[in-house]
Amino acid sequence: MTLPPEFALIARHFRPLAGDGALDLSDDAALLDPPAGHQLVLAADAMVAGVHFLADDPPETIAQDVAWKLVAVNLSDLAAMGATPLGYLMTCAFPRGTAEDWIAAFARGLAEDQREYKLTVLGGDTVSTTGPATFSLTILGTVSPGTALRRTGARPGDEVWVSGTIGDGALGLLALTSRMPQDDHLARRYRLPEPRLALGAVLAGIARAAMDVSDGLVQDLGHLARAAGCGATVNADAIPLSDPAQRALHGDPALRARVLTGGDDYELLLAADPADAARVRAAAESAGVPVTRIGRFTIGEGVTVLDGAGAPIPLPHGGWSHF
Amino acid sequence: MTLPPEFALIARHFRPLAGDGALDLSDDAALLDPPAGHQLVLAADAMVAGVHFLADDPPETIAQDVAWKLVAVNLSDLAAMGATPLGYLMTCAFPRGTAEDWIAAFARGLAEDQREYKLTVLGGDTVSTTGPATFSLTILGTVSPGTALRRTGARPGDEVWVSGTIGDGALGLLALTSRMPQDDHLARRYRLPEPRLALGAVLAGIARAAMDVSDGLVQDLGHLARAAGCGATVNADAIPLSDPAQRALHGDPALRARVLTGGDDYELLLAADPADAARVRAAAESAGVPVTRIGRFTIGEGVTVLDGAGAPIPLPHGGWSHF
Repeated sequence: MTLPPEFALIARHFRPLAGDGALDLSDDAALLDPPAGHQLVLAADAMVAGVHFLADDPPETIAQDVAWKLVAVNLSDLAAMGATPLGYLMTCAFPRGTAEDWIAAFARGLAEDQREYKLTVLGGDTVSTTGPATFSLTILGTVSPGTALRRTGARPGDEVWVSGTIGDGALGLLALTSRMPQDDHLARRYRLPEPRLALGAVLAGIARAAMDVSDGLVQDLGHLARAAGCGATVNADAIPLSDPAQRALHGDPALRARVLTGGDDYELLLAADPADAARVRAAAESAGVPVTRIGRFTIGEGVTVLDGAGAPIPLPHGGWSHF
Repeated sequence: MTLPPEFALIARHFRPLAGDGALDLSDDAALLDPPAGHQLVLAADAMVAGVHFLADDPPETIAQDVAWKLVAVNLSDLAAMGATPLGYLMTCAFPRGTAEDWIAAFARGLAEDQREYKLTVLGGDTVSTTGPATFSLTILGTVSPGTALRRTGARPGDEVWVSGTIGDGALGLLALTSRMPQDDHLARRYRLPEPRLALGAVLAGIARAAMDVSDGLVQDLGHLARAAGCGATVNADAIPLSDPAQRALHGDPALRARVLTGGDDYELLLAADPADAARVRAAAESAGVPVTRIGRFTIGEGVTVLDGAGAPIPLPHGGWSHF
């Protein structure tokens, strides 16, 4: 089945997702009353088939998962700012000949995100492409004035914290591409990241700096350190790993570099005053998200990862870039 | 030259375009104080090389023009709502191996738009693609509460107005692709549309309905009529044409269908009470944009275009869709 005309397609699959202000997706633009007494938080991320997701999986699964991940990675940016989601605009470039079933599954993935994170689509555009499916999403959220978490603000001596577990997404990609034994947990962590919105929301006034880990722990910690004009040291053994990730590393210790620099974690990375450790733990507990102290910010520059014996681990390039 | 890593690229070309709230494009998201006492207007449009713009033109020209058009078509959506531009987020998927010169020229085009229309970039994402260059832009604007122009609202008996001239963009595309003699004016109208922001801004309380003409006059008038549950009749001879378009039609009368349904006009299409004709003219004069009455909304449905003898002109499919 080839694509029906753009307007019928939007009506059938995307209009049911529209919220207040979206004007049924039938006007030139959406109209929104900004929530009184709040600042707006805005981010945009793009995903390309074959670059950011695997295009050759069973269509129904992949379409739904891709939609979920597209929204989730944008929500992760909101989480890193401590923001509450409001809504999103999305543009889709579908290859000519995309089956309508694919689009229907994609819309189901969006609907799941919307239910889970209480947001609606405000507008967008649907076009055709001669290349791979390409999606772009702009997310809107809100924060109370002055409470947004920022990347700048870490100080030498601050502790480095991370939420959840690190490396699952990168290992999941290896498992999905048969470069490692199959593993449902790791594959799921790659495909369906869970943005740490609840955690971000309770960290205002506690964390000195925050960002989400999307390009690899080492690379993103490097951003946080650089933004603060300092360096950071991480203890490799302190980095929280899931059971499947631990088993994978036990089987192949060379995977450690992948865990450290692989990306697709969508966990939060924090800087906090050591005196605030108990507050960080209490906030994380209230949000139901585990957090772990993995190192310290230092005077200097760059990120050093130390092994169990205190020796620096040599690392490739420093992280995964989508370029 | 291949692309330098994402971060260096953003720093070099896009950071100089960032405005207040963009946090130097170095945080996870932008932070914006919504202008007090205003509603937000939001729209998103995507453009794909080879589908929405010609990819094989001289790189320096095309990159700059593409950037201009990407912003302009989004601004045209704001114009159709009577909104004032505030800023934008943009995602770029560049083919691997894109020359940095191309990206530099692209950034120059964005800078021109920003100067001309007083807006800044708030955020975005840059990724690589195995397909054609693909861009997505989300525009933010503001309107005074309750004054946004809407698509719904036309009534049978209302007059149909259009700004500027129609068909130039569609004929410009023919000229640029050697399917018609070269013409600088028409080519420029295709490449560098001018969003009718000044006109949109003065039509609040005067026009009953408005939208921008992007998919073809007949198709877009059909949307306006359908949104109001009515039909529309247009007098072909009343449709405003530029001198180059008149000459082209004189040479090849078959081009008339292209003018009526070709798209890429980015003019405003309005519904107004006949009693308000003088107010429409005065508003347009104050905005410095010519407007022309081309027909009427009718009881019924569909769009009929009448020739000079009052006979309906047979039309293909009804307009250009990017699908």
